[in-house]
Amino acid sequence: MPKPPIAPPHRAPAPVLIGLDWGTSSLRAYLFDASGSVLARRQGGPGIMAVAEARFREAFEALCAPWLDTHPGLPVIASGMIGSRQGWREAPYVHAPAGFAEIAAGLTSLDDLAGRPFRLVPGVQASGRQGAADVMRGEETEVFGALAARALLETPDAAHRDALFVLPGTHSKWVEVRGHRIVALRTYLTGETWAVLRQHSILGRLCADPPEDDPAAQALALAAFDTGVRQGHAEPGALLHQLFMVRTEGLFGRFAPTQLPAYLSGLLTGTEIADAWRWCDDGPAPVLVGAGELTTRYARAFERLGLPASLAAEGCAAEGLFAFAVAAGLIDSPRSPTGQSR
Amino acid sequence: MPKPPIAPPHRAPAPVLIGLDWGTSSLRAYLFDASGSVLARRQGGPGIMAVAEARFREAFEALCAPWLDTHPGLPVIASGMIGSRQGWREAPYVHAPAGFAEIAAGLTSLDDLAGRPFRLVPGVQASGRQGAADVMRGEETEVFGALAARALLETPDAAHRDALFVLPGTHSKWVEVRGHRIVALRTYLTGETWAVLRQHSILGRLCADPPEDDPAAQALALAAFDTGVRQGHAEPGALLHQLFMVRTEGLFGRFAPTQLPAYLSGLLTGTEIADAWRWCDDGPAPVLVGAGELTTRYARAFERLGLPASLAAEGCAAEGLFAFAVAAGLIDSPRSPTGQSR
Repeated sequence: MPKPPIAPPHRAPAPVLIGLDWGTSSLRAYLFDASGSVLARRQGGPGIMAVAEARFREAFEALCAPWLDTHPGLPVIASGMIGSRQGWREAPYVHAPAGFAEIAAGLTSLDDLAGRPFRLVPGVQASGRQGAADVMRGEETEVFGALAARALLETPDAAHRDALFVLPGTHSKWVEVRGHRIVALRTYLTGETWAVLRQHSILGRLCADPPEDDPAAQALALAAFDTGVRQGHAEPGALLHQLFMVRTEGLFGRFAPTQLPAYLSGLLTGTEIADAWRWCDDGPAPVLVGAGELTTRYARAFERLGLPASLAAEGCAAEGLFAFAVAAGLIDSPRSPTGQSR
Repeated sequence: MPKPPIAPPHRAPAPVLIGLDWGTSSLRAYLFDASGSVLARRQGGPGIMAVAEARFREAFEALCAPWLDTHPGLPVIASGMIGSRQGWREAPYVHAPAGFAEIAAGLTSLDDLAGRPFRLVPGVQASGRQGAADVMRGEETEVFGALAARALLETPDAAHRDALFVLPGTHSKWVEVRGHRIVALRTYLTGETWAVLRQHSILGRLCADPPEDDPAAQALALAAFDTGVRQGHAEPGALLHQLFMVRTEGLFGRFAPTQLPAYLSGLLTGTEIADAWRWCDDGPAPVLVGAGELTTRYARAFERLGLPASLAAEGCAAEGLFAFAVAAGLIDSPRSPTGQSR
């Protein structure tokens, strides 16, 4: 039997860049080729609060060791709280209105501390009421990643130059973009408030998590979430009262213990949406950025309230990191917006 | 030198009743004479959550031992969470509208478990939006104590038959009285929300308590409280956003760490007042019930907002306990409303 022809050697795409999404409580890493495709992912690294004695270099090198062993010279770009005062080095906030170019101009070098080409994406600061500043770190990268994914960075169409992004999380962010620039943002302590009430308040004592393998209990929890969304949205100024009602609804058996965490989540989410909707009055319909259960819940809340919203493509953080690395000149032959090398 | 004349023997007023204000986290006891005067107080007993294995009798007898040793037959009346499902015995809620007589008719006997005449004052339940119930235990006794102290129980003057009481606390209560009856109530999780955010959230990491011996730091904290009250009152629907701003105000140095706990307290208090003021629209000016720093802060918040409010006489809990004990026939020769024995 003749031997099969020898296949031509497979040319694996060459890695050219590592991107880090390094926040307060997590570190995720992406390995990119020159076209911006993600070749590999690693997660489970320590958030900046979990890095002892500021040993950020060791934490990064430990997570990315498999990549660095074979490609020791890879440059790195990082976004998130790693660029805060509590991080590796402070990358000063860029003031809104802040477009892609202004943020790229604020990239901060860490080459000296990291021992390789290493850039930090700065956060964005926007003035709110009475001159108080609202801030973000990391979300600006997701926002420009989402814009890049929608090709909004390139279109001259005014209808696509403006957008409103919602990034659910421990600290939920609403980000207004006009003319391709971040012009305003508003943060809500929604996720963290839920967590501390669930874990540490008298409400938590009545709560129980619905079993993951019990579809009926899960459905009842979602129904309680819907009720909470509607009540929170109807009376956003009454949140402190409605929080107490979580207790009485539990005491009087209107909701089962396995419904109460979702009911509490719904009240907080509905309250946030009611206020944010007024804040971004007459703006474009929001685009939800993020993955996972939390984003799914926000999408459900918008739908239940009859408010228009859509979901961004996944992978916005990686998309944004690659775009800033190109702007920083960290890589040699990036794709152009039309897919050609320059 | 002639001996001084022998003084006539001093007739100490005879104790006739023990009153207990027994809540979730504290137990206070009062010793009354037949006129309703408080002869002695004891505090520092365990709240119901701190009583192991439901040993309520031991906890009560330990705190009141000095009184029981000399007057072993004293009857007892108790209000608060001791009458809840988690307490010694459940005294079912009386439904609003609930006057003094309806609540007195709901007194629950504990004679069998306590080994002496012992009555529990029931809590009050009122329907809120969509049939959900708001509840209180203990505050109803303070409310009728405040009404008794103002002689409102006895006056036929319609202008004095209606009142709005505010009872600041872990769970702040607003109680509406019409025609001498509790007709509505609204609870806010204000105090507990402050405590869990102060202790367990990212906001708490920026907070520090102002030194008690530093009047300048105390004054700055009060100024931050005032700012928070105004901001919370102006935008009650934006609370979840304003909570995040506590962080940025700290990060950008607008408030010192020793101002942030008071600023947070002001935001929550102002938010509560804004919502409650709408709830009790066109009602009488509120009367603050309670003693201590928290009540003082609420009074300050009302003043800063230009809203009318007054302070109830102190000792409302004791006043109310005595009134219910008289109604229960627990004591033989109570004072009449005009001060005469019957």
